[in-house]
Amino acid sequence: MKNSGLSQLMDKNMNTTIGLLGGGQLGQMLCEAANPLGVSVVVLDAPNSPAKQVNSRVSHIDGSYTDPEKIRELARRVDILTIETEHVDTYVLEEIAEKGVEVADRYGNISMKKVQVQPNWRTIRIIQDKFKQKQHLMAHGVQTVMAESVKPDPTDLNVFGSTFGFPFMLKTRKNAYDGRGNFIVKTSVQIEKALEEFRTKDLYAEKWANFRMELAVMVVKFEEGLTSDGLGTVAYPVVETIHQDSICHLVYAPARGISDDVQQRAKKIAQKAVGCLWGRGVFGVELFLLQDGEIVVNEIAPRPHNSGHYTIEACPTFSQYKSQLLSILEIRPHFPESVVPLLSPATIMLNILGGVNKKSHEALVEKALLIPSAALHLYGKESRPGRKIGHISIISSTMSEGI
Amino acid sequence: MKNSGLSQLMDKNMNTTIGLLGGGQLGQMLCEAANPLGVSVVVLDAPNSPAKQVNSRVSHIDGSYTDPEKIRELARRVDILTIETEHVDTYVLEEIAEKGVEVADRYGNISMKKVQVQPNWRTIRIIQDKFKQKQHLMAHGVQTVMAESVKPDPTDLNVFGSTFGFPFMLKTRKNAYDGRGNFIVKTSVQIEKALEEFRTKDLYAEKWANFRMELAVMVVKFEEGLTSDGLGTVAYPVVETIHQDSICHLVYAPARGISDDVQQRAKKIAQKAVGCLWGRGVFGVELFLLQDGEIVVNEIAPRPHNSGHYTIEACPTFSQYKSQLLSILEIRPHFPESVVPLLSPATIMLNILGGVNKKSHEALVEKALLIPSAALHLYGKESRPGRKIGHISIISSTMSEGI
Repeated sequence: MKNSGLSQLMDKNMNTTIGLLGGGQLGQMLCEAANPLGVSVVVLDAPNSPAKQVNSRVSHIDGSYTDPEKIRELARRVDILTIETEHVDTYVLEEIAEKGVEVADRYGNISMKKVQVQPNWRTIRIIQDKFKQKQHLMAHGVQTVMAESVKPDPTDLNVFGSTFGFPFMLKTRKNAYDGRGNFIVKTSVQIEKALEEFRTKDLYAEKWANFRMELAVMVVKFEEGLTSDGLGTVAYPVVETIHQDSICHLVYAPARGISDDVQQRAKKIAQKAVGCLWGRGVFGVELFLLQDGEIVVNEIAPRPHNSGHYTIEACPTFSQYKSQLLSILEIRPHFPESVVPLLSPATIMLNILGGVNKKSHEALVEKALLIPSAALHLYGKESRPGRKIGHISIISSTMSEGI
Repeated sequence: MKNSGLSQLMDKNMNTTIGLLGGGQLGQMLCEAANPLGVSVVVLDAPNSPAKQVNSRVSHIDGSYTDPEKIRELARRVDILTIETEHVDTYVLEEIAEKGVEVADRYGNISMKKVQVQPNWRTIRIIQDKFKQKQHLMAHGVQTVMAESVKPDPTDLNVFGSTFGFPFMLKTRKNAYDGRGNFIVKTSVQIEKALEEFRTKDLYAEKWANFRMELAVMVVKFEEGLTSDGLGTVAYPVVETIHQDSICHLVYAPARGISDDVQQRAKKIAQKAVGCLWGRGVFGVELFLLQDGEIVVNEIAPRPHNSGHYTIEACPTFSQYKSQLLSILEIRPHFPESVVPLLSPATIMLNILGGVNKKSHEALVEKALLIPSAALHLYGKESRPGRKIGHISIISSTMSEGI
């Protein structure tokens, strides 16, 4: 059974310690995947954060994943840094990856230790700025929604509206998620109100995407460099996402009632989009299927994604979290046709949001407990209105049965 | 959505803290199932035992699960006690369940707190003594292998051999697992040697079971009392187990090449066997399919079982560990026809045993990492020769493809 290639896999790749910036539910599910593989993950986040609750094999670091000194402390202890959120300090990550972090040996001699960042800090920096992200994708021939950088100035916005039509979206370029940082400008009358909210931020405006359906694809990238047309990436099937108040509410995997052609095109675009980013990891690609049948990228997450939670049960030997781990550890299983096959023919994922009081999500949890084909995931987070505190995945032999 | 029955489920059943005696791999996988359900598990075992490595939501208790004082300390902190091994002190458990454990209120007043033991301490006590276990099953009309209590005396053994034939099995009544405590007496010449090993133990002799195949069934019992013919229990499909040196080596789920009739009969016998035991929980029933087509019970484990590991991936929303949790918490989902359906049409589970050196299991681990349809479970245990340190489950659309 001796094989030098394989032995390297155990001695090198599997002996790698991963440092994780952020210990929320994505980090928690990453740790749940890492534990049985024997992969060490050190988490930087607040004490008792969800990821730390399920991993006591190593000591973690208490602090903020936006604190440069804490990120350096994490880097000193690990071999690879990765993220569960793109809202991190990419300048510190760049410094650690390119120049290194100071480490002292037992005699007090200082040297610089470079630590890999996966996916690459360039990718995280581009994705952080949603306008730059779109420009980057367009420059690489990936269709996205038409967008323009705008000043916080009524004239600029009126010009955009009269050129591309109302309604349009006014968005902050950074720190936006779950609908925060989005404003629908229905008519020119609303421009003042929109600017009141966003005046101090960097902004861009986006043409209204008149979509038929929102789709998402998880894509795994195993290579460091850019790959043309996404060659060499591996994709999960195309799923349908349904948002409520701009927060992901439901995911149908696979997407309901779309043609093979749409499946194939969506997958290809997602793989092409991920191919033009640096570094390894799993990426969540959100897409719009427009009324005219065209498919455009909405945005990309350089990490496991809410639309990929369903993979834990639908593909129980190769979830998006295992994908993240193996890809950053440079372990590449063979996937025929570059597709991760699902075991479950039909899966529905439903987010559990905190309600107005502690009790308001309990009815949903109770139902899930009584359905044998439902998996309940509570994240161990305090319930607050609108906060993602868990999810439920229901598997079925057909989508209609699942509903 | 108000429903008093459902609300009770959240307020009472899900608010229960479970105390677990033993924190090995079965306890670890129980904790992995408990975490996303939001169920609290407090573990009594050595520091850093596998179960504690994946559960830092609560503080655990360091000590031996055979230490009466430690078991009482655990009982003071929890609402239900359960086990991951039957080799526990059932007299302490009886005392805690029937008389209670002393607890002091804030003023130092002492009262007795009774704590449920699931499954019932009676069941654990009977199962601990493998000869009593067989007698109990026979008394309830469940066929097992013919066995007789024997004294550690050559005459007794020779009588058994000449009555029931050679070879026969000489077994210790207690503390036997993974083949420890078993001796195959091939001829009367070996009797002296067998007694040398076992002279100080309580023994029984078992007629040789000339089996065609070893089968196993996981059965979930949701009711406290005995149920005639196993009515009300729920069963997973019948699987095939292959042992090497008396240690479970491979599990094929479902069993290969057995008729529907054998599937049905095996399931019925397993359910009947579990029905004649007290308390709630999941049970692993090991069976022999004899050459003449008869099916008899070999032995029962009153807990999750090695032959049920495959359920984690084959039934990703309802593993044997979730079964254990929900049944002891008195939460009973509806299973049509009292069967837990599998999502994976064919699953193979392979144990990873520690080898002669740290490296010897690595080739297997490496292979598993490179197969997308394989799930790797390493338990975080130190490798020692013959020790169960992990397992691999491979899912497939057909059994031949999986092989």
